[in-house]
Amino acid sequence: MERRIVDLINENKVQDIRNELLELNIVDIANVLEEVDKHQLVMIFRILPKDVASGVFAYIPVELQQHLVESITDKEVKGIIDELFLDDAVDFIEEMPANIVKKVLKNTDEELRKLINQLLNYPDYSAGSIMTVEYVDLKKEMTVKEAIGHIKKTGVDKETINTCYVIGKNRTLEGVVSIRKLILSNDDQIIKDILNDDVISIKTTDDQENTAQLFKKYDLTAMPVVDNENRLVGIITVDDIVDIIEQENTEDLQKMAAMQPSEEEYLKTGVFELAKHRITWLLILMLSATFTGNIIKRFEDVLQSVVVLTAFIPMLMDTGGNAGSQSSTLIIRGLALGEISMSDALKVFWKELRVSVVVGLVLAFVNFLRIFYLEGVGAMVSLTVCITLFMTVVLAKVVGGLLPIVAKSVKLDPAIMASPLITTIVDAFSLIIYFKTAHMLIGI
Amino acid sequence: MERRIVDLINENKVQDIRNELLELNIVDIANVLEEVDKHQLVMIFRILPKDVASGVFAYIPVELQQHLVESITDKEVKGIIDELFLDDAVDFIEEMPANIVKKVLKNTDEELRKLINQLLNYPDYSAGSIMTVEYVDLKKEMTVKEAIGHIKKTGVDKETINTCYVIGKNRTLEGVVSIRKLILSNDDQIIKDILNDDVISIKTTDDQENTAQLFKKYDLTAMPVVDNENRLVGIITVDDIVDIIEQENTEDLQKMAAMQPSEEEYLKTGVFELAKHRITWLLILMLSATFTGNIIKRFEDVLQSVVVLTAFIPMLMDTGGNAGSQSSTLIIRGLALGEISMSDALKVFWKELRVSVVVGLVLAFVNFLRIFYLEGVGAMVSLTVCITLFMTVVLAKVVGGLLPIVAKSVKLDPAIMASPLITTIVDAFSLIIYFKTAHMLIGI
Repeated sequence: MERRIVDLINENKVQDIRNELLELNIVDIANVLEEVDKHQLVMIFRILPKDVASGVFAYIPVELQQHLVESITDKEVKGIIDELFLDDAVDFIEEMPANIVKKVLKNTDEELRKLINQLLNYPDYSAGSIMTVEYVDLKKEMTVKEAIGHIKKTGVDKETINTCYVIGKNRTLEGVVSIRKLILSNDDQIIKDILNDDVISIKTTDDQENTAQLFKKYDLTAMPVVDNENRLVGIITVDDIVDIIEQENTEDLQKMAAMQPSEEEYLKTGVFELAKHRITWLLILMLSATFTGNIIKRFEDVLQSVVVLTAFIPMLMDTGGNAGSQSSTLIIRGLALGEISMSDALKVFWKELRVSVVVGLVLAFVNFLRIFYLEGVGAMVSLTVCITLFMTVVLAKVVGGLLPIVAKSVKLDPAIMASPLITTIVDAFSLIIYFKTAHMLIGI
Repeated sequence: MERRIVDLINENKVQDIRNELLELNIVDIANVLEEVDKHQLVMIFRILPKDVASGVFAYIPVELQQHLVESITDKEVKGIIDELFLDDAVDFIEEMPANIVKKVLKNTDEELRKLINQLLNYPDYSAGSIMTVEYVDLKKEMTVKEAIGHIKKTGVDKETINTCYVIGKNRTLEGVVSIRKLILSNDDQIIKDILNDDVISIKTTDDQENTAQLFKKYDLTAMPVVDNENRLVGIITVDDIVDIIEQENTEDLQKMAAMQPSEEEYLKTGVFELAKHRITWLLILMLSATFTGNIIKRFEDVLQSVVVLTAFIPMLMDTGGNAGSQSSTLIIRGLALGEISMSDALKVFWKELRVSVVVGLVLAFVNFLRIFYLEGVGAMVSLTVCITLFMTVVLAKVVGGLLPIVAKSVKLDPAIMASPLITTIVDAFSLIIYFKTAHMLIGI
């Protein structure tokens, strides 16, 4: 389908293109536009009806948005911005260079410009920065019939009418009424009597991650945003929250894999950009491995007299790293989902201690069987390896479990404390334990 | 607030408890119930109005659900099940042991029982298994006024009325109409003329992960589920999708950190259960580190003659592991989000090759400066370390980028191919490169 449209576009059959495109969902039209040449992009954009065009505009990548705005007239720019939902307009303006921002703001009415500037001023990743102001507001004294009449009159420009917000004097938020409640109530009922005053709301300055957690906890599809005086200033809808959840998850994953987080798609990111995001942490971790190297150097004589000890270093380090990252991953995830809080540190310590003893014993036992019986390694060396293995697993799991909580308590991102950093710490201690044990048991 | 209610409960002030609880959101009531004793749980549950009670029931943990159903009368069980949305009822029944399932099904009407059994029969993690059948269906010939009348009559039992589904003969899905469209249209308009026939739907047997991707792509709040003949059989709402997204993310993270995925919360999972989920992969990876150990043993003579080489093994292995898991994480995430597909293998290979050359050169250069100039390590050993470092980074990134795609193409889970497995592979090759290079450059 989309393939066929690209063919039509290449043959320049304008009327057919328009008809075919209008059969599609705006998300799919946006996908088609990503496939065509830049001059064709402008041409196609111009043949779309205004409301479809601005819907599509919200879904195309930033580069194409910029190219479009650079290529069309001031009047056309105004047309798009007027039709866009305010949160989409703000998202777009945030990504544009100064000259485009100027062209856009110059072509918006003063009132809209003020709103845009207000939203642009909220801190990044705050609830205010992701909200929209296109919501339905009702008054307590309205009847259901009046309320529905009000929605009929104003609803076409609203991002959602599924939840309506009841405001009192000075726009303070007094409750919510779902469209379902309105439809199922009698025409002459008063909003005051059917509103739900147990409203889950959020402040403009609250973090978007908290907002997402409330959406999840209460299964919401929209949430009102209020200022410090509980005045309604905007709403956030669940489609934006879904994007934020995925974005936060991606960032956590990237940090846990020792990268600087980036919102860009992999295939659309340049080689040097990708390299840049990866190199800092690799350098830090490489240099911190100096400690490990120094420990080995310090015990060179031990290794030289019992050279077989070297063969087990990779196994000990890998197992320690894996054991630690299992624990840190679970705790980081629990913190992110709000299932674990800082006050649970002791519980986590105690749980990880017990789990690590169980896991450590099993691993040490299996390993002893393998190297002592199967590989015929000497008893004392086998014992040294297995004692170290056990202690490494316990250490790795306890450190892995606690470090993310410690990080959070000093306002660092728990995800950054994940596997790579823990690996370095555990590596160093594991080697010291290894050599000290060897010293005691083998007497070197 | 919740604290105060728990106090009231302990003082057994029934009427006060009821009043205080009814001020709360059902999610918060469920949280209160988690805090109280089991016999108090049943008492409180009984003082709640029926509709609130069943709402709360859907939000309490499985153990409490089971305890409740065991403690209340058959009639009360029927009351809850009748009030529950069908998807919540099915979720609950799926988790219960056989005797509870029997008690529940015995107390449901035949029609409902048939529906429940039908939903229970869909494969786990399929769209059918998470859908509900409580949706609003309209006919093409209805006027808007008739449609709204139909919603008024039947809407109270529906999971959502925000999107209505237009069905034709044999219940085939013909289009959707949003409640917004209905409200904003004139009473005498015909549904046929205002419906949207470009419906994004999904089959009962499709995977829930695909369903979630469609919700994200098209910013949906509900999606119809159809059978092979395009007959409407249910709908999925966005609140369930949000849970599924988080669940899939958690599972991916757990697999990437070498654990068997589990849906249970960390703090609520027992020590042996946690140990069980972690030990399999730790054992596999520990035993696979045998290869690495064997390689070191094979080159024991090299290490014995230039013992300083040992000191760099941890750094080489850690850097290789980190470099590889950076790449695998990005690719696994890209695959999960649908941003990368199997046909992109060549693009990924080419991109990782170039990124790894850039990153590898920088790391090797910095490392050379450090060990040759700062630590005074000999030129040939320094060169050996840095050449190995460069080649390890390139190898790790290319393998890390491609392995998840290879896994997906043979229908394995890409996340399982992540860092731990890649580390083992890269460790082994890195050591071989190390010793071969040492052999050539240092002549041992």
